[in-house]
Amino acid sequence: MCTPIGGLLTALVMVLGTAGELAPIPRITWEHGEVPLVHFRVPGIHNYSALLLSEDKDSLYVGAREAVFAVSALDISKKQHEAYWKVSEDKKAKCAEKGKSKQTECLNYIRVLQPLSTTSLYVCGTNAFQPACDYLSLPSFTFLGRSEDGKGRCPFDPAHSYTSVMVDGELYSGTSYNFLGSEPIIARNSSHSPLRTEYAIPWLNEPSFVFADVIRTSPGDAGYEDDRVYFFFTEVSVEYEFVFKLLVPRIARVCKGDQGGLRTLQKKWTTFLKARLVCSQPDSGLIFNVLRDIFVLRSPGLKEPVFYGLFTPQLNNVGLSAVCAYNLSTAEEVFSHGKYMQSTTVEQSHTKWVSYSGPVPTPRPGACIGREARAANYTSSLSLPDKTLQFVKDHPLMDDSVMPIDNRPRLVKKDVNYTQIAVDRTQALDGTVYDVMFLSTDRGALHKAVSLKDGVHVIEETQLFQESEPVQTLLLSAKKGRRFVYAGSNSGVVQAPLAFCGKHSSCEDCVLARDPYCAWSLHAATCISLQQTEGASRGLIQDLSGDASTCPDVSTASPRQHFLKHGGTAELRCSQRSNLAQVVWTFQNGVLKAESPKYGLTGRKHLLIFNLSEGDSGVYQCLSEERVRNRTISQVVAKHLLEVKVLSRTPVVPTLP
Amino acid sequence: MCTPIGGLLTALVMVLGTAGELAPIPRITWEHGEVPLVHFRVPGIHNYSALLLSEDKDSLYVGAREAVFAVSALDISKKQHEAYWKVSEDKKAKCAEKGKSKQTECLNYIRVLQPLSTTSLYVCGTNAFQPACDYLSLPSFTFLGRSEDGKGRCPFDPAHSYTSVMVDGELYSGTSYNFLGSEPIIARNSSHSPLRTEYAIPWLNEPSFVFADVIRTSPGDAGYEDDRVYFFFTEVSVEYEFVFKLLVPRIARVCKGDQGGLRTLQKKWTTFLKARLVCSQPDSGLIFNVLRDIFVLRSPGLKEPVFYGLFTPQLNNVGLSAVCAYNLSTAEEVFSHGKYMQSTTVEQSHTKWVSYSGPVPTPRPGACIGREARAANYTSSLSLPDKTLQFVKDHPLMDDSVMPIDNRPRLVKKDVNYTQIAVDRTQALDGTVYDVMFLSTDRGALHKAVSLKDGVHVIEETQLFQESEPVQTLLLSAKKGRRFVYAGSNSGVVQAPLAFCGKHSSCEDCVLARDPYCAWSLHAATCISLQQTEGASRGLIQDLSGDASTCPDVSTASPRQHFLKHGGTAELRCSQRSNLAQVVWTFQNGVLKAESPKYGLTGRKHLLIFNLSEGDSGVYQCLSEERVRNRTISQVVAKHLLEVKVLSRTPVVPTLP
Repeated sequence: MCTPIGGLLTALVMVLGTAGELAPIPRITWEHGEVPLVHFRVPGIHNYSALLLSEDKDSLYVGAREAVFAVSALDISKKQHEAYWKVSEDKKAKCAEKGKSKQTECLNYIRVLQPLSTTSLYVCGTNAFQPACDYLSLPSFTFLGRSEDGKGRCPFDPAHSYTSVMVDGELYSGTSYNFLGSEPIIARNSSHSPLRTEYAIPWLNEPSFVFADVIRTSPGDAGYEDDRVYFFFTEVSVEYEFVFKLLVPRIARVCKGDQGGLRTLQKKWTTFLKARLVCSQPDSGLIFNVLRDIFVLRSPGLKEPVFYGLFTPQLNNVGLSAVCAYNLSTAEEVFSHGKYMQSTTVEQSHTKWVSYSGPVPTPRPGACIGREARAANYTSSLSLPDKTLQFVKDHPLMDDSVMPIDNRPRLVKKDVNYTQIAVDRTQALDGTVYDVMFLSTDRGALHKAVSLKDGVHVIEETQLFQESEPVQTLLLSAKKGRRFVYAGSNSGVVQAPLAFCGKHSSCEDCVLARDPYCAWSLHAATCISLQQTEGASRGLIQDLSGDASTCPDVSTASPRQHFLKHGGTAELRCSQRSNLAQVVWTFQNGVLKAESPKYGLTGRKHLLIFNLSEGDSGVYQCLSEERVRNRTISQVVAKHLLEVKVLSRTPVVPTLP
Repeated sequence: MCTPIGGLLTALVMVLGTAGELAPIPRITWEHGEVPLVHFRVPGIHNYSALLLSEDKDSLYVGAREAVFAVSALDISKKQHEAYWKVSEDKKAKCAEKGKSKQTECLNYIRVLQPLSTTSLYVCGTNAFQPACDYLSLPSFTFLGRSEDGKGRCPFDPAHSYTSVMVDGELYSGTSYNFLGSEPIIARNSSHSPLRTEYAIPWLNEPSFVFADVIRTSPGDAGYEDDRVYFFFTEVSVEYEFVFKLLVPRIARVCKGDQGGLRTLQKKWTTFLKARLVCSQPDSGLIFNVLRDIFVLRSPGLKEPVFYGLFTPQLNNVGLSAVCAYNLSTAEEVFSHGKYMQSTTVEQSHTKWVSYSGPVPTPRPGACIGREARAANYTSSLSLPDKTLQFVKDHPLMDDSVMPIDNRPRLVKKDVNYTQIAVDRTQALDGTVYDVMFLSTDRGALHKAVSLKDGVHVIEETQLFQESEPVQTLLLSAKKGRRFVYAGSNSGVVQAPLAFCGKHSSCEDCVLARDPYCAWSLHAATCISLQQTEGASRGLIQDLSGDASTCPDVSTASPRQHFLKHGGTAELRCSQRSNLAQVVWTFQNGVLKAESPKYGLTGRKHLLIFNLSEGDSGVYQCLSEERVRNRTISQVVAKHLLEVKVLSRTPVVPTLP
């Protein structure tokens, strides 16, 4: 029964021991300006937080503060259209009277940008704390001016959380319903059947909304005969207790066919159920209980959609992020067959949530109306018995948790705060399928990571934005051969290719990148993007294990020649890029100790040779030594031939290119 | 009611914003061998985990694996005595039969080393999983061979936690009571009145024992008329719940006069009460719930003892430590007047601990027998009513928590795992009193930190042990003028002075160290230790705010001269030590950009000048710029005079000292 201090210390050492695993370093860091990125920003316009892609039209719609733009999805610097939606001075003044800032808060932040039809978008904005919605006609790119009440669709406060999804012309939203932001709501905004959540702690307890999407029923799907809308959020837990309020990530589900109850739950969801999303690593005490973003990965190769969740910890978060992936069926199983939780009152004043073990009414509370219910003559939620409705009203929280695939995070990264995630499923040259994770940071960077056999490999880090600012939105385009990642921030939008294959100048570098998008072309003698090649893999070299042994031998390449004078100093340059590699200099094939008085290093890679004499003449090689899966791969990055001569007294420039 | 994602993100950014506060860098790093340290180790002997100081005898007793030593407290390299206590081969074999390692576990680890009288020590060891105790006669330094059963005084397993304190010849211990370590116990090992804890989860739930000490009642102390023994440990909480088992730090208290109950709690504590020790920073989600060490600070200047607690987090601990300090009276108040917790059963199977709000019996359960109890004719715990005894048996846990001084940590440090703490209360030159914290790490280093007006200042980091190994014990000596810190590890014991004042070579450096132990002597023109000076502060400069403006002007010091030849390279050295300072090079009073093609830096501080010409002749100065409290203090660390001449062709050594 005793957990000895020894045990605790062992656990601690273990955590430290895995620090390497928790801190996978991006192999290459691309500074802003080093790689080709396309930017979109309009002077005076801020907060480019809503992005919507139309693959048909090759257009990217951008919702910013007081404006909506259409830009070319292939080159976002090309603005196609713009529409402004500003707050009147009168409204601004009223908003300011309520104590809000005229310069920042009392403006119109576009928060909903959803496709309504092929010719129109549905747009909502905070509108100086008076949320409103309107229709944007695409042909004319003008607002129709039908200013609808945005309450329950869009938050009042631009600082408040929100999410929405358009399903068959009806907007499903998660937001706050009042000025203070104190009344959370998950609603269907529909003219014929509007529905909402109960305003009660067991339903929603100080939620931060993160994401929503619809999961369609496939025609052959026997069990689920209704489309479901999933909501993802973080809320204050009722089931846990610690020194202070504990947050918990939730997945909630409603059915599209829900029409509310007849008496009980009238105009309220009869299918609202929620469950815990678990993302933790018990061995090392890592617990990620703040959900930041969700990406739904759909692919012809996948039997079912996979939810990729991006998490951070609430407790002791000094820079930790994690990714956990969930199968749709795991969540469905919890909602369809899991246990419910129930609250009981302890000693008059305390509430404790425990597993409910009593009888469950039929039809099952919270279930969509399916074949079975219809067979029992329950044709709609309106005809459900009070017993079922009262039960779901009191028991919206499941006792079973939704566990991640493999019961553990896909990625844990120290010293970074990720803000958004997008995932692409791609096939490497050898046919193996990889889920490539694009993760944006709170400092304007993008990490590209992939799970390999030997652990998570962060292929590269790209500084998307010049300033260190949080990336607010991340989007992937799916069109074959023309694929990009789009990122929105407060200052603008950036378009980046999925890979920078061409930047790898040698076959070794191309292979060591371990980037499933890139392969070395023997024919072209360049590192090319597989996206842009058609079929034939002949003459291409790629190896996700980093084995570069099939690369052609280039050791015969002739060295750069330098003639330098006696007594001078030489600087021999080496353009090594990998953060995972070490630089080793050799002279006439012997390894040099760079920190001796004769030699020095600048920038940790370029070699300085002081006080040149004839004996320093010869061949110098800069080797990059990179450890991959317990093997060290050594490649010659630079080769210099030095000739020292006693020349005339005129000084020679000692720095060599 | 809504916690918007905005709010969460703000909190996150705040945490990052305070990263500087969480990562105070030690101003100076002393590598092993750079400062004078005294070592004690005996070949073949490991695990020097028990240290006991006799200030009278100027002796340090060292308990290691299978041996006890006496060394000089003034120079621990001087061994005075040794006594070995080895496990017989027979016992070793029996231990190995039970599946334990003969080489490591089946040995005798000294775990109790307590003073019994002026002429003897009480010593217990794990004794190959058969814990035993013996008496060590100090005059002869031999064991008396009265091998007592050590069960309940010393753990069976060297990996298990333990603590003990000798009070008036009786050993109070916290350890495990059986081979498996599954039965925790807090006991008084006494011939006339042995007492122990109940074997029940509410009393002790998988505890890791950390520390124990006695608090004596002062004669004038009206409220507490009995000495109390405090125990500190971390255990599995019954009152909290999260995704996995939560640990909680505890302070527990028993009264020395306790004699157990007559019927209820016979031979058990009637005064065992425990409470939560809180060490957290709610704003930033930091929660330190694993107690590592306690130091009791007593000082004539302090009204009451202060408990300094060293903590780490259980959750998401990727290198975080904190120090919280507690007033004795805060703990006493919780035990004397605080609310109790009680457990209730929820839905048959669950237990929930809630605040007890019913009537509390008289005399107050768990209270020491004091004046009031005696007045009511309760002269001993044996005469207490069953009602009081039954209550304390069922309610050993207090509902009120023991909060730290100022309700927040004294220090939070990122990227380090502290193992032990010792605190010294010292007076600076201006009369201000500082609590100097000595904190050992799991990598063999010692940090010395002090709370200043502008936050925590880590004065220096000293690598005590050559190897990176956890420091297991830390001890401070108190004798005036001869004060040391002693540290024990697996490999040996190290003795270090409290400060390395003499290593600060300039007045600025001495003042910028902001070390309350050090001051600059104008007379001696050296940085001296205040410990070694008597009274007179005249001619001494110290300023804990780092204001070095009263230091004498040394800018007139003459520079080092160098003669170099045309076309060569110069390396000008600068011996800057502070990790908080930046190096700036000037040439003829203009600031140099070190990374231009003309200049380079090696080791981030020494200046390289390439391709020397006559124009490079002149005065170069290396300035150290250190920011202290939003002021930048600039001091000249090195001054060089360069003369470049067109000399003969013989090469000149380009590296200058």
